[in-house]
Amino acid sequence: MSANEDAITNWFAGQRKLAKSDFPIGIGDDMAQIRLAKDTSVLITTDILLEGVHFDFATATLKQIGYKAMAVSISDCAAMATIPIAAVVSVGLPKGFGQRQLKQLHAGIILAADKFNCKLIGGDIAGWKTKKPFVINVAMLSKPAANKPVKRSGAKVGDCICVTGSLGGSGESPDYKHLTFEPRVKEAIEIAKMVTINAMLDISDGLSSDLNRICRQSGVGAIINAEDIPISPQAVRLSSPQAKKNKEPLKAALNDGEDFELLFTLSTKDCEKLLKNWNNKTAITKIGEITNTNKMQIKTADGKIKNLEISGYDHLKI
Amino acid sequence: MSANEDAITNWFAGQRKLAKSDFPIGIGDDMAQIRLAKDTSVLITTDILLEGVHFDFATATLKQIGYKAMAVSISDCAAMATIPIAAVVSVGLPKGFGQRQLKQLHAGIILAADKFNCKLIGGDIAGWKTKKPFVINVAMLSKPAANKPVKRSGAKVGDCICVTGSLGGSGESPDYKHLTFEPRVKEAIEIAKMVTINAMLDISDGLSSDLNRICRQSGVGAIINAEDIPISPQAVRLSSPQAKKNKEPLKAALNDGEDFELLFTLSTKDCEKLLKNWNNKTAITKIGEITNTNKMQIKTADGKIKNLEISGYDHLKI
Repeated sequence: MSANEDAITNWFAGQRKLAKSDFPIGIGDDMAQIRLAKDTSVLITTDILLEGVHFDFATATLKQIGYKAMAVSISDCAAMATIPIAAVVSVGLPKGFGQRQLKQLHAGIILAADKFNCKLIGGDIAGWKTKKPFVINVAMLSKPAANKPVKRSGAKVGDCICVTGSLGGSGESPDYKHLTFEPRVKEAIEIAKMVTINAMLDISDGLSSDLNRICRQSGVGAIINAEDIPISPQAVRLSSPQAKKNKEPLKAALNDGEDFELLFTLSTKDCEKLLKNWNNKTAITKIGEITNTNKMQIKTADGKIKNLEISGYDHLKI
Repeated sequence: MSANEDAITNWFAGQRKLAKSDFPIGIGDDMAQIRLAKDTSVLITTDILLEGVHFDFATATLKQIGYKAMAVSISDCAAMATIPIAAVVSVGLPKGFGQRQLKQLHAGIILAADKFNCKLIGGDIAGWKTKKPFVINVAMLSKPAANKPVKRSGAKVGDCICVTGSLGGSGESPDYKHLTFEPRVKEAIEIAKMVTINAMLDISDGLSSDLNRICRQSGVGAIINAEDIPISPQAVRLSSPQAKKNKEPLKAALNDGEDFELLFTLSTKDCEKLLKNWNNKTAITKIGEITNTNKMQIKTADGKIKNLEISGYDHLKI
């Protein structure tokens, strides 16, 4: 159960009431929204990436780490269908880390920043007294697009559940998709232009955990079809004899996390319209429906309906 | 020389030009400013605090660490004479760290937040796979007060140099002022109401380093009077026989850092006006003048003028 992280987040959210007029979106979504004037608001997200957890120097270059740190936050902007504006980046540096390494990291930060027209406008540098570990935090601002920022809590019974791209195996060699993924900003804004998205987030901890978040925050249930889940080539390879991992691709797609694909719900009518008119190289797949059961369910290939195990990544799992 | 950190910051700032119309203040100040509409802008700062560097579990409670993390960023809001609005907090947790510890940390975050009416609106939780270390990052938004946000780069030849409070010994027992200090938000806004502040920052790395930043960014020099520098009781105690540290209080005041007092410059006329009318329990002391020498100088008690050694904390010093 991905319950610990969500439980404490709920507890935090309950400690102080935020005035809706000043903070239309508060704790517990992909970004918080701050109203600054009648027609002007800004959104903010923060993401911390830890050595040995979100990346490893054995498999990632500093440039890739810089890119990933920015891309994770840009993906949060996409999750609300908002437009990235600017970022500030903090780093905790291992002893001996100098200007050369910072410039490599910067190259990755700028690669992502330039691609999404998100400016690097500040930061903070601190050094550990030890040779380990490296840590990087990105805080990013975005602004609403033509649509209202899309929350997690708007899923309605009968909605179709859709995802972009394909899922699973994001941490697997040789691709290490989690280091090079393309945040779905353009896709999110394009979808929001075509239809009304009722609820959305980006899949960071795994489809099962993140769909559960939409359902809990919307007060609904869901049923997904195992056969419809778009499984990534990286996850498919896991079951090949060469992989020797004996890992089930479907499970990888459900629980691996760090896919950074969009997971969203919309009315059946809008779903039909979207799938009919969608003309983008990033696939959109309908994977299930929102139900009034309050349960998370999965229909397997043999037609049986089972409870969906929520077993994505939980940072507070001990 | 506190040169490494500043050198790389300059390098970062030089890599991409930011449009002044969208980003009136960019990389290299206490906060960056983003214009969102004609008359609406927001400022952002980010600060990362590392276990063993900015705090230690031997001398700090989790509540104190939460308070400090917020107070450091609130102090940045003060440094621009702006009003804190909201913060997002990221943490990297040692293995075994659970909800109980997060609630203690939260108590300190909220203590600072409530005191300065700065709302906690979001965050990120990640867990190391190891028992160490703890890291916390705060990103904070502020809005301009009646004054324009005060930059570091506006010091003028002939300006008086002033500081709030007293300096040095912030890390010394039993007070550990660096954990409990009161950011000077109200003072900054009050000063800005009374006079025009030409340049300002908050002293985080030490008076010598931070005054040097104002001078470098303003293209001026400075001379300070050793006898006028307000030395904190904590720094004075360092030279007592009991302290056994044999550390010179003046050096502590010049270089210890983490004072989080305001350092600012203003015209002689405004300085006179301010000192005459200032009626706040936080002292303001004139400590020197901005010069056209391009040098950093100090006048010692015997009347001699020496070069001021810049030896505050540098996170990139190896």
